[in-house]
Amino acid sequence: MPGLLLTTIEMIKPLDKGAMAEARSRQDMLTKPRGSLGMLEDLSVKIAGICRCAAPSLGNKAIVVMAADHGVVAEGVSAYPQEVTRQMVANFLNGCAAINVLARHTGVRLVVVDMGVIGGFEAHPSLVCKMIDFGTKNIARGPAMSREQALDTLEAGIAVVEAQISQGLDIVGTGDMGIGNTTSASAVGAAITGLSAAELTGTGTGISEERLSHKVRIVNQALETNQPSHDDAIDILAKVGGFEIGGLAGVILAAAANHIPVVIDGFISGAAALIAVKLAPLTREYLIASHLSAEPGHLLMLDYMRLTPLLNLKMRLGEGTGAALGISLAEASVKILKEMLTFGEADVSDKSREGG
Amino acid sequence: MPGLLLTTIEMIKPLDKGAMAEARSRQDMLTKPRGSLGMLEDLSVKIAGICRCAAPSLGNKAIVVMAADHGVVAEGVSAYPQEVTRQMVANFLNGCAAINVLARHTGVRLVVVDMGVIGGFEAHPSLVCKMIDFGTKNIARGPAMSREQALDTLEAGIAVVEAQISQGLDIVGTGDMGIGNTTSASAVGAAITGLSAAELTGTGTGISEERLSHKVRIVNQALETNQPSHDDAIDILAKVGGFEIGGLAGVILAAAANHIPVVIDGFISGAAALIAVKLAPLTREYLIASHLSAEPGHLLMLDYMRLTPLLNLKMRLGEGTGAALGISLAEASVKILKEMLTFGEADVSDKSREGG
Repeated sequence: MPGLLLTTIEMIKPLDKGAMAEARSRQDMLTKPRGSLGMLEDLSVKIAGICRCAAPSLGNKAIVVMAADHGVVAEGVSAYPQEVTRQMVANFLNGCAAINVLARHTGVRLVVVDMGVIGGFEAHPSLVCKMIDFGTKNIARGPAMSREQALDTLEAGIAVVEAQISQGLDIVGTGDMGIGNTTSASAVGAAITGLSAAELTGTGTGISEERLSHKVRIVNQALETNQPSHDDAIDILAKVGGFEIGGLAGVILAAAANHIPVVIDGFISGAAALIAVKLAPLTREYLIASHLSAEPGHLLMLDYMRLTPLLNLKMRLGEGTGAALGISLAEASVKILKEMLTFGEADVSDKSREGG
Repeated sequence: MPGLLLTTIEMIKPLDKGAMAEARSRQDMLTKPRGSLGMLEDLSVKIAGICRCAAPSLGNKAIVVMAADHGVVAEGVSAYPQEVTRQMVANFLNGCAAINVLARHTGVRLVVVDMGVIGGFEAHPSLVCKMIDFGTKNIARGPAMSREQALDTLEAGIAVVEAQISQGLDIVGTGDMGIGNTTSASAVGAAITGLSAAELTGTGTGISEERLSHKVRIVNQALETNQPSHDDAIDILAKVGGFEIGGLAGVILAAAANHIPVVIDGFISGAAALIAVKLAPLTREYLIASHLSAEPGHLLMLDYMRLTPLLNLKMRLGEGTGAALGISLAEASVKILKEMLTFGEADVSDKSREGG
């Protein structure tokens, strides 16, 4: 394992239980019935543990959207043609896609990364180029990429986060773009969780039921052809993954290593999280599941990682759209911790009759 | 029925189907798979219908938090002493309660209304005084208020919204503060839906299971003593309601009359919405259910009104905290509609293989 990846994994430690206890204790004293902000209270405590600070601030917010192409689109697994990956990245750079709108709405800066889009791009101030190759190979016929390339994707993700940290980064979200990438994500999910391709494969951008059966067959074929090793996340990534999936796994590992909460988006980010957690199980504690995707396999991935999503709005777009909304809830939760007064500070009578 | 209330009710019309069709058609052309933003897409279409505009803006956002005391606290139904109502209103005015934090986070202005808090308040630039009386009477022993007072609460709510409209108001949320008000809300809910007190009564701010049984008995006693007429929402409000519940019902009616989306908070706002919908059934179409409260009766209220909540974060605080988060999602949904480009505008290939 190369140096940067190894060092990053070794930096990942358990959450700070002291900061969590302090945050919980403050939540319990704030002017509201104990527990009455539900999941927002738990979220603030988790973030305190991640940040190693009882009253964290999340002013510097970013979403890393990674894009790449997938050779498996040759098998007819997507409703959209391959060139849409490249066109949508251009749309991100123009500021007119869904993730741009939601990032602006939630005050999150957007970092668009080309991990391997066919055709490439002209230089653009908002585009980070970490191109591995012009798309993966077709996983139905052989490995997506070499093992070396898989390691490169992880290190690229780590490098992107380190560059963002130098600009100030308190919380990071993950997002993806890549026509065909739900097929890869299903294969990664099946290889890691041991669940079947049928359970983990959905209609993605919106294929017919008939084409869904075909997609399940392709995922099975990818697993049978490549025989990824259940215990080796890098082997799984190389054989059935994608450049953006590996890159996002690197983003997640780097965030955990640097005590930064990571808000994961939907199905593709879920596959990236599975790889990161497989490589470094403590990473799980740094993950915030923003939303439950309408893609049915997403719930199985989250269950496998024992994560509860904050939102369930039947979204299935990717791009980090769920992550943007989740980041806003995360920020709200820590503002509660910092800006609300306690019963004592506000001179409000605490629960008296039950001594609670 | 007095003039202002009658006029307001008569102004409530069905949603604008043309604006909704236009918004839906634009959603279907935006650069994302059709339907992939799930409930956010439906929400934007509903708001278009409410605002009678295919591309509405929701820049002017307010939450009206109404506070009042409840005579029924004499029966020992709450975990907190009655003076907390007044203390928490002071906390709102100081900007340090949960709703202040979430309103700032979501860019929503807060309008605090004294509908009848024991002790009253000094004049304060952020406080609207619509005081009906120093708290309701004990509903376990007789009616909460006179029929005339009930009508006054509704007209007070209407007047508050009209004053806000003159300052610019694109969307409004509802919030409440009133120790003992879950008991009133349960009684209102039971009287309107016909469901039992046991089904509609929960632990509120956090009473024990034993005290919950007592609370259910008190709700039943209130219904038996007062015999509110199932078909007369004003009778129900007068006999077992509260000043803030009536005021919020007025807010909801005035918003619907003026084509302004109303984002309702949790259990108390649910009771207010039931009264508004009973008075003017078309009001239902103007309601956006922000979240599902942890108070179990809330789901039954929403089901009765055929509303699906956007969020389920196990919150049960009131104050408009859920409404603030819901308003932010509503604003996000219409920004999507306005700020995203269509496939044609962005030069992105639309779904080709399935002709969709």
